[in-house]
Amino acid sequence: MELPAPVDFAPPPNAVTRARWLEADREHRPGRLELLRERLAGEGVDAYFGAKPEHMRWLTGFVLADGEEKVAGHSGQFLVGADRVTLVSDSRYTVQARREATDVVVDEIGYDLPAAWPRLLVDVGARRVAVEATAVSHALWERLRAGAPDVELVPVDGWIEAMRAVKTPDEVERIGAACAVADRALATLLPEIRAGVTEHDLALRLEWLMRTGGAEALAFDVACLAGPEAALPHGTPGDRPVRDGAVLLFDFGAQVEGYRSDMTRTLFVGEPAERDLRVYDLVRRAQQAAIETLEARVLGGTVPDGRELDAISRGVIDEARTWPAYGHGLGHGIGLATHEAPSLSRSAPETPLPSPTVFSVEPGIYLEGEMGVRIEDLVHLDADRGIVELLTRFPRDVLVLPA
Amino acid sequence: MELPAPVDFAPPPNAVTRARWLEADREHRPGRLELLRERLAGEGVDAYFGAKPEHMRWLTGFVLADGEEKVAGHSGQFLVGADRVTLVSDSRYTVQARREATDVVVDEIGYDLPAAWPRLLVDVGARRVAVEATAVSHALWERLRAGAPDVELVPVDGWIEAMRAVKTPDEVERIGAACAVADRALATLLPEIRAGVTEHDLALRLEWLMRTGGAEALAFDVACLAGPEAALPHGTPGDRPVRDGAVLLFDFGAQVEGYRSDMTRTLFVGEPAERDLRVYDLVRRAQQAAIETLEARVLGGTVPDGRELDAISRGVIDEARTWPAYGHGLGHGIGLATHEAPSLSRSAPETPLPSPTVFSVEPGIYLEGEMGVRIEDLVHLDADRGIVELLTRFPRDVLVLPA
Repeated sequence: MELPAPVDFAPPPNAVTRARWLEADREHRPGRLELLRERLAGEGVDAYFGAKPEHMRWLTGFVLADGEEKVAGHSGQFLVGADRVTLVSDSRYTVQARREATDVVVDEIGYDLPAAWPRLLVDVGARRVAVEATAVSHALWERLRAGAPDVELVPVDGWIEAMRAVKTPDEVERIGAACAVADRALATLLPEIRAGVTEHDLALRLEWLMRTGGAEALAFDVACLAGPEAALPHGTPGDRPVRDGAVLLFDFGAQVEGYRSDMTRTLFVGEPAERDLRVYDLVRRAQQAAIETLEARVLGGTVPDGRELDAISRGVIDEARTWPAYGHGLGHGIGLATHEAPSLSRSAPETPLPSPTVFSVEPGIYLEGEMGVRIEDLVHLDADRGIVELLTRFPRDVLVLPA
Repeated sequence: MELPAPVDFAPPPNAVTRARWLEADREHRPGRLELLRERLAGEGVDAYFGAKPEHMRWLTGFVLADGEEKVAGHSGQFLVGADRVTLVSDSRYTVQARREATDVVVDEIGYDLPAAWPRLLVDVGARRVAVEATAVSHALWERLRAGAPDVELVPVDGWIEAMRAVKTPDEVERIGAACAVADRALATLLPEIRAGVTEHDLALRLEWLMRTGGAEALAFDVACLAGPEAALPHGTPGDRPVRDGAVLLFDFGAQVEGYRSDMTRTLFVGEPAERDLRVYDLVRRAQQAAIETLEARVLGGTVPDGRELDAISRGVIDEARTWPAYGHGLGHGIGLATHEAPSLSRSAPETPLPSPTVFSVEPGIYLEGEMGVRIEDLVHLDADRGIVELLTRFPRDVLVLPA
């Protein structure tokens, strides 16, 4: 096939589009809070304490860069009460918080949340508080409990995740834009790939192309893995050179106005071995089977669950009885976080996928010490509108580059 | 003054040096485990469960890239018993774990730690387990407790942090090398800085210079903040242009073979206002006072605590009675993590600083809506050898660039 070219993919969003997205965020926030408050009322709690950076951004507008939560102390953590939202900060973040989280009370508590906790609870009028139990450490939990012993802490998980799994059109647009940034970057890189170039240099170059091509950040560190390294589903690029006749796997994603993409392509550099082509074909068919099942089901008016799609894709590889199927899950939701709800895996809930939503479909075969193939695309599902759409547009055909 | 030039700073380490460092890591690991086991015995527990990526690397050799812990599930988490170390993984990480963590048992448990927990405890022979309570979520804690109700979980914090605060010579060398990568990158960038260039473009360029100049990663996202933005101690670069006659603040760091640097410089672009020069001078004197106190105390055979040094530096600004001192702490330890023990702040422990160790000294003055100045250097303290050494070599004098 002819090589994909950068012009095959959408250009980065312009300033007008970006401003529209940010405006959409502002418009959505009251409804999101309303939805959360309905759940609080239904569950019999009167406040919600959140600590995940993606929840801060989605509900309040406050942005922490990836990893900044490790040095930000409690800044950005928030308490949603019946008629008030408090976002806590220390002096390093107060100005930013007031600027970004315009509809909440920014309370500069400093570095000691447990000391401020009883007063914060009084301010929002809380006696029974839902607390994000997978985001709050055991140590903090115990200190909060001791700080206000007459207030009940209710461990919760997945409430905002479930709300966030359902995407608005502007969210899907941004994920699509992040996909296009990644697609274009790989297309731009293709002519620079040849035997002898190292994984590390290609990964850095691909990152640079995304970050100067419309991405404000990466969704995660670029994986570029040559030959046997591709058998490591989460390997790290090294000083290993690309080899003639071997696979070259790229797993990468961009971030555009907060929203992320995630894609994997396994290319061939030089003439592929016949075995490797068969592995590729099997992975491609395993991916296609899941997507076609989804399409057929949506066309028929039903929505499958994530466990079912995982089983269908895995089944294609298992039935061939040649190589073992991937040990990881088939896919994951994506949005403000790279991995989020819904899950498509052997242990995913047996309830229909949310809709509208976006998730990855990424089967793989890994032959330790020899090679690996994974193909990953993002799928946009909108059951009510009968949409099953690939947001990743980079071709999935076998791509052989000259060595 | 003449502008600093890239050649003023040490070149990136060569392959021989890097190999020596990795060998040093291997040699240190048994002693580190020994030290931890001594503490376990002293505290009456028979195992230690760790979940922080920097602890994984320091004790076992297993490396997770920054942020990867968010998608890595339990992979890399470890259990140290009296005569065995178990590192858990799922299929995505098993090959890497066996390659990097050569002296431990890699146990591929998959994605469900609580299900495997009772068996893992039996394998290391644990009845009373110290658990990193600031790294383990409340939800996981409860599931581990329920999974093995007859095993006592003891919440601990700071054990390995205290061990890691004391640095070996090869660790200090790597922090110094990361400082030099950052120093050189800023020196290379200086001629490219002029009024009109945006914060974002300068930040990206500085990152690129570090990552192609010896850094395998950043220590954290580059902050480049112009004029009034410099008043945000943790601001994010935007599309704002550098302005003539205003300050320009860079806060950035590199990572070299796992170890990190952190530095801040506040430059002037075009003729500085007299007020801004006075702010700069005061911050510089506040920093110098802390460093000189440390030198004098070490010369006299004693080691100050982090609260004392914070108070001395803060006092210089407070005594001038002109502008408010920084709301954050004076500094923090640095190593495999950007922020680690020891702490230098108003709430730091009143016990002598560890030694040998490395920490930042970073006073600042922030005038909201107007400007900000921070100067940050890394200091290497080795009390026994009478060493108080700046690892950051970039000059701290007023630096005025042409607009």
